[in-house]
Amino acid sequence: MVKEPGQPANAPEVLYYWDYLHLDYLLNAQKPRSAEGESPKHEEFLFIVVHQTFELWFRQIIFELDSVLAIMGQSTVHERELRTVLARLQRIIEIQRLFVVQLDVLETMTPLDFFDFRSALVPASGFQSVQFRLIENKFGLRSSDRMRVEGHCYNATLRPDHVSLVTQSEKEPSLFDHVECWLARMPFLQINGFDFLEVYRGAAQDAHAAERVALRTNPNLDDRSRDKQLRALEGAIRKFDILFEPQQWQESIDEGARRLSYDAFVSALFITLYRDEPILQRPFEILTALIAIDESLTNWRQRHALLAHRMLGRHTGTAGSGYGYLEETARRHKVFGDLFDIPTFFLPRATRPTLPDEVLSKLDFRLEH
Amino acid sequence: MVKEPGQPANAPEVLYYWDYLHLDYLLNAQKPRSAEGESPKHEEFLFIVVHQTFELWFRQIIFELDSVLAIMGQSTVHERELRTVLARLQRIIEIQRLFVVQLDVLETMTPLDFFDFRSALVPASGFQSVQFRLIENKFGLRSSDRMRVEGHCYNATLRPDHVSLVTQSEKEPSLFDHVECWLARMPFLQINGFDFLEVYRGAAQDAHAAERVALRTNPNLDDRSRDKQLRALEGAIRKFDILFEPQQWQESIDEGARRLSYDAFVSALFITLYRDEPILQRPFEILTALIAIDESLTNWRQRHALLAHRMLGRHTGTAGSGYGYLEETARRHKVFGDLFDIPTFFLPRATRPTLPDEVLSKLDFRLEH
Amino acid sequence: MVKEPGQPANAPEVLYYWDYLHLDYLLNAQKPRSAEGESPKHEEFLFIVVHQTFELWFRQIIFELDSVLAIMGQSTVHERELRTVLARLQRIIEIQRLFVVQLDVLETMTPLDFFDFRSALVPASGFQSVQFRLIENKFGLRSSDRMRVEGHCYNATLRPDHVSLVTQSEKEPSLFDHVECWLARMPFLQINGFDFLEVYRGAAQDAHAAERVALRTNPNLDDRSRDKQLRALEGAIRKFDILFEPQQWQESIDEGARRLSYDAFVSALFITLYRDEPILQRPFEILTALIAIDESLTNWRQRHALLAHRMLGRHTGTAGSGYGYLEETARRHKVFGDLFDIPTFFLPRATRPTLPDEVLSKLDFRLEH
Amino acid sequence: MVKEPGQPANAPEVLYYWDYLHLDYLLNAQKPRSAEGESPKHEEFLFIVVHQTFELWFRQIIFELDSVLAIMGQSTVHERELRTVLARLQRIIEIQRLFVVQLDVLETMTPLDFFDFRSALVPASGFQSVQFRLIENKFGLRSSDRMRVEGHCYNATLRPDHVSLVTQSEKEPSLFDHVECWLARMPFLQINGFDFLEVYRGAAQDAHAAERVALRTNPNLDDRSRDKQLRALEGAIRKFDILFEPQQWQESIDEGARRLSYDAFVSALFITLYRDEPILQRPFEILTALIAIDESLTNWRQRHALLAHRMLGRHTGTAGSGYGYLEETARRHKVFGDLFDIPTFFLPRATRPTLPDEVLSKLDFRLEH
Repeated sequence: MVKEPGQPANAPEVLYYWDYLHLDYLLNAQKPRSAEGESPKHEEFLFIVVHQTFELWFRQIIFELDSVLAIMGQSTVHERELRTVLARLQRIIEIQRLFVVQLDVLETMTPLDFFDFRSALVPASGFQSVQFRLIENKFGLRSSDRMRVEGHCYNATLRPDHVSLVTQSEKEPSLFDHVECWLARMPFLQINGFDFLEVYRGAAQDAHAAERVALRTNPNLDDRSRDKQLRALEGAIRKFDILFEPQQWQESIDEGARRLSYDAFVSALFITLYRDEPILQRPFEILTALIAIDESLTNWRQRHALLAHRMLGRHTGTAGSGYGYLEETARRHKVFGDLFDIPTFFLPRATRPTLPDEVLSKLDFRLEH
Repeated sequence: MVKEPGQPANAPEVLYYWDYLHLDYLLNAQKPRSAEGESPKHEEFLFIVVHQTFELWFRQIIFELDSVLAIMGQSTVHERELRTVLARLQRIIEIQRLFVVQLDVLETMTPLDFFDFRSALVPASGFQSVQFRLIENKFGLRSSDRMRVEGHCYNATLRPDHVSLVTQSEKEPSLFDHVECWLARMPFLQINGFDFLEVYRGAAQDAHAAERVALRTNPNLDDRSRDKQLRALEGAIRKFDILFEPQQWQESIDEGARRLSYDAFVSALFITLYRDEPILQRPFEILTALIAIDESLTNWRQRHALLAHRMLGRHTGTAGSGYGYLEETARRHKVFGDLFDIPTFFLPRATRPTLPDEVLSKLDFRLEH
Repeated sequence: MVKEPGQPANAPEVLYYWDYLHLDYLLNAQKPRSAEGESPKHEEFLFIVVHQTFELWFRQIIFELDSVLAIMGQSTVHERELRTVLARLQRIIEIQRLFVVQLDVLETMTPLDFFDFRSALVPASGFQSVQFRLIENKFGLRSSDRMRVEGHCYNATLRPDHVSLVTQSEKEPSLFDHVECWLARMPFLQINGFDFLEVYRGAAQDAHAAERVALRTNPNLDDRSRDKQLRALEGAIRKFDILFEPQQWQESIDEGARRLSYDAFVSALFITLYRDEPILQRPFEILTALIAIDESLTNWRQRHALLAHRMLGRHTGTAGSGYGYLEETARRHKVFGDLFDIPTFFLPRATRPTLPDEVLSKLDFRLEH
Repeated sequence: MVKEPGQPANAPEVLYYWDYLHLDYLLNAQKPRSAEGESPKHEEFLFIVVHQTFELWFRQIIFELDSVLAIMGQSTVHERELRTVLARLQRIIEIQRLFVVQLDVLETMTPLDFFDFRSALVPASGFQSVQFRLIENKFGLRSSDRMRVEGHCYNATLRPDHVSLVTQSEKEPSLFDHVECWLARMPFLQINGFDFLEVYRGAAQDAHAAERVALRTNPNLDDRSRDKQLRALEGAIRKFDILFEPQQWQESIDEGARRLSYDAFVSALFITLYRDEPILQRPFEILTALIAIDESLTNWRQRHALLAHRMLGRHTGTAGSGYGYLEETARRHKVFGDLFDIPTFFLPRATRPTLPDEVLSKLDFRLEH
C-alpha cells in the first residue's frame, strides 16, 4: 500500500531509511505504458528511470539556484555568503557532470528498442520538462531569446496548470539579473582618484600603436599583404574600442549582439584582470563558475541533439521537432555569453596596467602578518 | 494534491510527460527532517536526493538482474538470449559508472554540514537499503560470507516487513548459481575424443619441466639461491596442479578458499583460453562482464568507506559501525573471485595447446563464405 | 644525457621500467617557450602536457585504426576477426571518454593565463595536429567534405614534410570505404528465394495505408487539419520510399545528401532490424560502435569549440580562425551520418516482417543443443 | 631522424605545433619488447601508451607539487598565494580523475593478452615508477610508514642512478611538513584574550554531561543496557578529551596512531568549525583539497589492486608481489589521515561555541560596504 508523502501511515517511532526517503512512492512510480498493452517492452523501464533521475537532479539544481538567487538578490552580499554562493554553483557543476554519464546509460538502449514503445508516449516529451524550463528561466534565459518550435512558444505544450508556473519564473529576476546588478555596483573602478577605464584606454592605445608599427616595419611583408593586415588590425581595434564607448555598447545590446550592461561588463573585466588580489578572488571564482555552468549546459544540449539524431534518424521527436532544433538551441541559448567574450579585451602583459599601491591595499587582507 | 501512482485523477486524454513520470510523487518526496525543527539545514536536501537517485538506479539494476536471472535460469540458453544477457550486464556496468560520480556530488557537502543534521536521522542508515541487499543476494553474495555488524545479522535493522523480502532473496538461486550451472554443462571439454584436461595437463608438465631446467642450469645462480627458487617453483606447481585434482578442488571449496565448482571453473578456463573461437566469444564476454560488475561493486564499497571516514572521522555511522566495517566488506564480499583467479592457470603461449581442427570446426560459424 | 629511442646506450642486462617506457625522452620533452623569455609562465607546462597526452592517445587510436583497416580490407572477414575489430573499436570509444576529462583538466587554466603565453606559440596551433588529420582521414572524412579555413585547405599550415603524409592518407581506403564494401557484399538479402526488400516494401505499404485510414477516420479532426496532416503524411511516405528506389538513392548521394551506397545501406538496415539473430549480432555491434565513435568525435569538436570561445573570446585562434569554425566542423564532419539515419526507415512492430524459418536457420548457430 | 629535445635540427623560423611538442621523440618512444621476438603482440602497444600517459601526468603533478612546496615553505604565505596553492591542488584533483578512466582503458586488454607479453618485461614493473615515488614523498609519505616488499625497501629495485633521487626527496620537507608548520603558526587560537581551547573544553563538558543525563533518564532502557551504553559513552568521552591533552596527543603520535602535531591539529579543527569567516575560507578549502587528493590517491591504489588481481590472478606481479600488497598500501599509505579524523571532535551545533564579536571582526573583510 502506497502512503502519502509527509504523513507516513502509523508514523513509526523509529525512523527507517526506507520511510525517510519515501521509497514507497519513489519505487512505485515506474509505470511503463507498454506494459498496459499486449507486449511490455523491457527497455521502457530504463527510459522512465533515466528521466526520473534527471528530474530529481533538476529538483536539486532548482533548490540550489533558489538559494543562490535569494543571496544574490540582496542589496549587499557579504563575503561569508559569497563562499556559500560559490559552493552551490560548484555543486551544480558537479551535478552536470552526471548528466553526460546518464546519457551514456540511456544510449545502452538501441533505436529499435526505443521505436517499439515511443508511439505509446506521444505526445509526451522531454520537451515538456517543466523543471528544465524553470532552470533555464532562473538561470537567465529570456523568452525573447528562445527559439520557437514549429511556430509555437516553448511552453505551449505544457500541462495547462504548469504554464503559469513557468510564465511566472520568466517575470522574476534571474541569476543573470542579480549578477548584473552585483557587478554594476562594484566599488572598485574609481578608487581614490584611480580611474580604471582611463588608464586601460591609455594602455590599449599604446598596445595598438605598437602593433601598427610592427606591421608597418615588417620587412617580410609586401605592400599588398601589409595593407590587408593593416585594414584587419584597424577593424580589430575598432571592435576593441567599444570598451570605452558606453553609447555604442548600449547600441550593441539593443541590436541583440550583447546583453550584459556596460558597467557590469567593465567590472567583470576588472575582476578578471586583477583576480589575484584577495578581495577579487571570490568574485572571480563566481564568474568562472557561471561560465562553466553555461558551457556545460550548452554541451549537454549538443549531446542531447546527437542522441536524438541517433535514436530517431530524420524522424521528428515526440514533440514534433528533430535534432536540428536541439542543435540550434545549443548554439543560441547561452546566457552568460558576454563573460565568454571577456578575453576579447585582454591586452598583452607588457602593456597591461598595474594597480597603484593605494588601490592594492584596498583589495588586500591578511591571514598572516 | 498528490495523486496515486498508476491511477491519475481525471485520467487525461492527452499524456503529459509530467504524469507519465509520476512527478507529483517524485518531486514531493523530499522531506528533510531538519525542516521540522527550528532550523532547516540546507544540505539535507542534497543528502536526500543523492540517496533517492541511488535507489532509483538500484531499482533499475534489480529490474535488469531479474530479467537476466530468468534467462540464465533456463535449462538451455539460446545464443539469441546470450546477447540480451550481455547487453543487460553491460548496462549495469554503465550504471555503476554513475555511482562514483554521484559520490563526488555528495562530497560537495562538508562533514560539518552533515554533522548538523545527522542526529535527526538516527537510526536510519544507508545500511538499511533493502534494494542494495537484494542486489547483493541476487548477484550471489551468500549470507554465510557476510560480515556481522556489531554482532548482528546484516538485516537485523531493516523495517520488519522488509526482512522477509531480503530473506526470501537469499533462498532463490542467484546469478552466481545460474552461471555456475551454465558453465558446468558446457559441452566442449570432451569433443570427439579430445579431452581438454588431459591435453592441458601434459602441456603444464612440459612448461613446468622447462622452468625447472632453466633454474637448474642458470649459471648466474649460486647453490643457495637455486635451492630457494626451486623450492618456490615446486610450491607454485603444486598450487597449479589443483586444476587436475577435482577432489582437492572440492576440499578448497569446503575450506572456503574457493567457491565455483570444479566443472564450472574448468569450463571458464577453457572459454578464456579459446575465446576467439566464434561460439566461445559471447560466453567470454559474459564472464568478463561479471568480473567488471564485481570489480566495480568492490571499488564502490571502498570509495564509500573513504567517504565515511571523511564525513564521520572515527565516529561510528548511524547504523553503529564505522568505515573500518565498510573497508572490510569491500575486501570480503567479492562474489566471482574465482573468475579473477583464472590467470593463475595460464601457461606460456609456446606450451599452450592448440585445438584440433575437428574441435575448431565445432566452435565455428560463418557470416561470409 | 638523452638516449636515442630503440638503442639505449649501454643496453642494460636488466630491463628497467624507466628504459622500457623511454622516459628519458618523454619526460624531457616539455620545453615551455615562455621559459626562454624573461618570465616563464607556470601554466604553459600544463598546456604542453595536455597536448602531449592527446597526441599519445591519437597515436594509440591510429595504431588501432590501422589494424582494423587491415582486417576489414580483406575480401572476406572471418567471425574470429570481427570480435577483434569490435574490441578495438570499443577501445577507441573508451579512449574518447578520456578526451572530455582532459579538456576539464585544461580548463583549470584561466584565459588570462593562456593569454600570457599564447603569442609565444604563434603560429603553432592544435589545428596542425597531423595525427588528428590522419585519424579523420582513416576514419573516412573526405577532403571534399572538409570546411576551408580562411580560404585555405586544412593541411596548408602543416610542416611541409607532413603534408604528403596527410595527403597520402586521403588516397588510401578509409574505414568508411571498407565498411561500405563489407556491408554491400552481405549475402542475406536474397536467401532461398526470400527477397527482403520486396517483403519490406509490402510491409511499408500496409503500414502507410493504415496511417492514412487512421487520419481519414479520426473524428477529432476538422477538414482543414485533416488535409494538412494528410499532406504531411504523403511527404513522409515519399521520403521513406527512397528505400525502394536505388536510382533516387544514387541521386541523393550525387547531391551530397547521402554517402553510403544503396546496397550497403540496405544491409545495414537489415542487420539493425534482425540484430538478435546470432550471425547478425556482431555486425550490429560493429555498426553501433561506429556510430558511437562518430558521435563522440562530434561531441568532442563541440566541446573544443566551447573551450576556444571561453579561452579566446572573439579573438581568432593561433591558426587564424575562431570557435565558429570549430562549431561548424562539429556539424559537418560526421562520417557515418547515414547510420544515424537508419531509424528513419523503421516500421511499427506490428507491420515489421518476421523472417521465414529457412532464413532464420541460416542466421543461427548454437552453443547448447 | 629523431632530433634532440630543446635543439631542433635546423631550428625553424616558423614554430610548428609538432616541434613545439617534440612529437618526434614522443611518438617514437613506443618500442614493444614483443616486437623484437618472432610474434609481436598487438596489446603491448596499449600497455606502453597507458603507462607513458600516466608518467606524463605524474610529471605534471610533480611540477605543481614543487611550486606548491615553494610557496608553502615560506615563513609567511600571503593570501594572493593561497589562491594559487588552492588552484594547483585542485588541478591535481582534476588530473586524478583521469587516472580512473585510464585504468578503464587499460582494462580493455584481457588477462590472456597481457600474459602473452608480460614475461618479456620482467623484472620491469610499474612498481619502479620513480615519479610516483617522488609524488608520494613530496606529498608526505614517510619511508618509515611504507610497507616492505618481500622484505625489501620500496626503492630497492630502482635503476641505481634513480635511487638517490628518490632518497633525496625523502629528506626534503614534504607538503605535509609545510602544511603542519603553516597550521601550527596560525594566530587565531588566542585572540584578544579569547582562548579557543578553553571555551571548547567547556562546551564539550556541557555536551557530554547532557548525553549522560539523557542516557540515565531514558525510561526505555533497562539497567543492563543503560550500564553498557554509559560505559561506551565514557569511553568515547575519554577519546574526545585527548583534544585537551597535548601530552597524550604527543604520546599517540609517538605510538604511530597520529601524525599531525597538536598545535597544527587544533588549528585545523578551528578552521573547519569557523570556515565561513572570510579569512578562514581559503585555508578551509586547502584542507579540503588535501583530503580529496589523499582520498583519490587511496582509491586509485585500491583500483590498481583490483586490476592486478584481475590481470594476474594469484600470480605475483613482475615486481614480485601481488594484489594483496597493493591493497595493503591503499589502507596504510594515507598521509593526511589526521584531517580525515577532524569530525571526531565536532560538537552538536547547540553546544558549539560562537565566536565573540571582536574575534569575528578580526576574521572579516568586505568587498561591499
